[in-house]
Amino acid sequence: MNEADTPRLSHLDEQGHAQMVDVGAKPETQREAVARGAVLMQPATLRLIVAGALPKGDVLAVARVAGIMAAKRTPDLIPLCHTLLLTNVAVDFTPQHATADTPDSTLHIEALVRTRGQTGVEMEALTAVSVAALTIYDMCKAVDKGMRISDIRLVQKRGGQSGAWVLEE
Amino acid sequence: MNEADTPRLSHLDEQGHAQMVDVGAKPETQREAVARGAVLMQPATLRLIVAGALPKGDVLAVARVAGIMAAKRTPDLIPLCHTLLLTNVAVDFTPQHATADTPDSTLHIEALVRTRGQTGVEMEALTAVSVAALTIYDMCKAVDKGMRISDIRLVQKRGGQSGAWVLEE
Amino acid sequence: MNEADTPRLSHLDEQGHAQMVDVGAKPETQREAVARGAVLMQPATLRLIVAGALPKGDVLAVARVAGIMAAKRTPDLIPLCHTLLLTNVAVDFTPQHATADTPDSTLHIEALVRTRGQTGVEMEALTAVSVAALTIYDMCKAVDKGMRISDIRLVQKRGGQSGAWVLEE
Amino acid sequence: MNEADTPRLSHLDEQGHAQMVDVGAKPETQREAVARGAVLMQPATLRLIVAGALPKGDVLAVARVAGIMAAKRTPDLIPLCHTLLLTNVAVDFTPQHATADTPDSTLHIEALVRTRGQTGVEMEALTAVSVAALTIYDMCKAVDKGMRISDIRLVQKRGGQSGAWVLEE
Amino acid sequence: MNEADTPRLSHLDEQGHAQMVDVGAKPETQREAVARGAVLMQPATLRLIVAGALPKGDVLAVARVAGIMAAKRTPDLIPLCHTLLLTNVAVDFTPQHATADTPDSTLHIEALVRTRGQTGVEMEALTAVSVAALTIYDMCKAVDKGMRISDIRLVQKRGGQSGAWVLEE
Amino acid sequence: MNEADTPRLSHLDEQGHAQMVDVGAKPETQREAVARGAVLMQPATLRLIVAGALPKGDVLAVARVAGIMAAKRTPDLIPLCHTLLLTNVAVDFTPQHATADTPDSTLHIEALVRTRGQTGVEMEALTAVSVAALTIYDMCKAVDKGMRISDIRLVQKRGGQSGAWVLEE
Repeated sequence: MNEADTPRLSHLDEQGHAQMVDVGAKPETQREAVARGAVLMQPATLRLIVAGALPKGDVLAVARVAGIMAAKRTPDLIPLCHTLLLTNVAVDFTPQHATADTPDSTLHIEALVRTRGQTGVEMEALTAVSVAALTIYDMCKAVDKGMRISDIRLVQKRGGQSGAWVLEE
Repeated sequence: MNEADTPRLSHLDEQGHAQMVDVGAKPETQREAVARGAVLMQPATLRLIVAGALPKGDVLAVARVAGIMAAKRTPDLIPLCHTLLLTNVAVDFTPQHATADTPDSTLHIEALVRTRGQTGVEMEALTAVSVAALTIYDMCKAVDKGMRISDIRLVQKRGGQSGAWVLEE
Repeated sequence: MNEADTPRLSHLDEQGHAQMVDVGAKPETQREAVARGAVLMQPATLRLIVAGALPKGDVLAVARVAGIMAAKRTPDLIPLCHTLLLTNVAVDFTPQHATADTPDSTLHIEALVRTRGQTGVEMEALTAVSVAALTIYDMCKAVDKGMRISDIRLVQKRGGQSGAWVLEE
Repeated sequence: MNEADTPRLSHLDEQGHAQMVDVGAKPETQREAVARGAVLMQPATLRLIVAGALPKGDVLAVARVAGIMAAKRTPDLIPLCHTLLLTNVAVDFTPQHATADTPDSTLHIEALVRTRGQTGVEMEALTAVSVAALTIYDMCKAVDKGMRISDIRLVQKRGGQSGAWVLEE
Repeated sequence: MNEADTPRLSHLDEQGHAQMVDVGAKPETQREAVARGAVLMQPATLRLIVAGALPKGDVLAVARVAGIMAAKRTPDLIPLCHTLLLTNVAVDFTPQHATADTPDSTLHIEALVRTRGQTGVEMEALTAVSVAALTIYDMCKAVDKGMRISDIRLVQKRGGQSGAWVLEE
Repeated sequence: MNEADTPRLSHLDEQGHAQMVDVGAKPETQREAVARGAVLMQPATLRLIVAGALPKGDVLAVARVAGIMAAKRTPDLIPLCHTLLLTNVAVDFTPQHATADTPDSTLHIEALVRTRGQTGVEMEALTAVSVAALTIYDMCKAVDKGMRISDIRLVQKRGGQSGAWVLEE
């Protein structure tokens, strides 16, 4: 691939300087993005968190709120991200306990974000997953500092010029 | 392990309700935390980013600033995190190009955070890595939506009552 | 009222987890909300504040600005609140001096908020009143720590599917 | 009381202009403040909320998180308030169901805030109560628009030059 | 000019109290604003900054990001400013080295902001320039405390009721 | 001056990458900074503003609040700036009406900021002046779009290793 064929990153201008992408000419459409991620942890840690879904505690409730609030603040965090009016944000958790084959337990996180606007909500969904995961880490770090946040990725998006996109997994 | 032996998460009170940990009785000490993470991507994407370290572009410069600013805003994002006066934040990147064995290229991210305070800066370091990684995703998503943010973890901490801790990798 | 008849809170999903209400299918309409509240205080405190409406001071000017700014930041404060583009925010104060029957003096606060959007601005109006009241407390607490913020309520809303609503007082 | 005897508000300078109080000469001491408030509502609304303390829902968990986060952001909201490093924030709820004499049900809110610093945390405690109350309103407004936030007041403070203070109720 | 002819500031109501201008009746149109400013400095300081445009450093990259992010946060900073969804923000720098006639060197800053909305983006463009200039100062103050930020002004606006406006220079 | 003698900007590391300066080893001392700036405008505009200092309006009260609040948010705006606990912020205005020699009128702005900390408050003082000036522009732009914000500079600092510094004017 020679220089002339190199694609250019849309967030850099011709001199390589950071820029917001001008979305002023794009039509407003319904848009949706789904992102996922995981927190890997010791089996005992996941048991403590899941206990929190019972009346004994609310680790997941706090992480869900943190993820939803972070989605709304995405343009404050990601420098070249446009401000959008989110019409929906949902964050969900699915625990997966360790087995003989996989010694770590895993807490799966999924975020769904919707808007009607001129650009997509991928970053909002990814930010919601990331901050929910960080909150899980914060609330459990006293018992398990070795937790890992892993595999944060966009799994699907809909709406906009480029149409639907689904991650091949 | 019976109920009486179960460790309790310090961010939950006896009824399981979320609480900040009271750090008022802890002494102020020098504290430091190092966190790492990675963004997995197509080989062509990493080549575009690394080109940005040259005069042609500044993807990494933008991601570094985003990570540093996010570290300072950690208590706004993580609900039960204490506000601290950070004395130092540094974010660094190391590219690792794909090989025959590993078809993905990887951008490694490391954040170092220091403070003098009553509680540690693990969350600030992890947040800096996460937001730097999200910024990389944002700036490159037009060419590579399938990037994955992976393996965000604390690698070492120093200072405070519990002393030094190093991740066994 | 048996279980089957129980209304469900729209901010909780079927499992009782917090969620933003999906407003994506709602039409954009002109919306308006008016909220009111009061700060009860010693008669001498209100006299000091009212003096501030004269060239001698600007307690009310500061509280007005604080209320207007807080209305704009409502989605940062109220976890499940949607971001909206407010087209108007106004905050007004009416002093009511103590009488023989009512030994406390009262500063009445009213906020009006308007938008064109997919959901209402009740929370923005209530937040403006609350933060204006907190600012009054802050500026006068050196002379009157016993002030009370009271009777913050929505008094009317217009626009949207459910139409107009007026508080019966 | 003649002009010369009039106390001056510490947040206004001699010309009546807003100012932060200079706390630079005050010693750092342990400080604590407790504030309380109440949300008055229909009996059915409180029953829905209390159900949320069970596995069926998490209205109170969300309001608690909102209150804690708001305490940390007090200096962003209250114009002349100093930034402090809070060492502890706790928010608690006590439901009081309607009786024959009091037709409204009441959700009582209490916030405790601690710091070691040069000025007190009254505003942080009052802000935590206010934002927790607003969040309760937000989550229940679909079923009860007539809720009232009432009687937000400081009930006690400790530490600092002026020593302990307890509200006479 | 007698009292009756005096124009009234649109951000003050008839009593002179601060108010947001009600833009609810204005049509949504494409709007654009360009602002400029300058930082005056010692010749050696500008040489250090310009060196940063080379691989050796990234002063301008950091200032550009700061300006873009500040544009998005304008309504958090300027009390009576409306929140808008910016579709584009760009910040550029032009160095002008000292000459025999002008002993100071100058870094010129220009910001372009676009939106589709009910009110203009002058404040966003001016805020981007101001915060980019402050960031330049911050990054160079160790070598040149005497830098001056100067001549921040709107140079042109388009769109909206009042039509195009160009500064006469 | 050859390469070896070139001073390096403290906010860039050896590779020219942005970094916060590590202030962890600096002692906490009392620190103070004073910054000034000016807004140049048509004579009629200044007369409208000054009228606002009377009961007829509160342009200056709003700008003062905006400046004080911005000082507290400086580390959110300036990427490499440390968070500090400000013990005092004051913002003052001095009008200077046009004369035969100077056809523009000028509103002079001065900000004083104090802290006890490990690094100085120059950026906080400069940010307070800048945001107060931007607020003046915002409130008066309907009558005078050609206003210019000018000559924002540090005029003095005290405290810290490098001791006192006064601008030579």
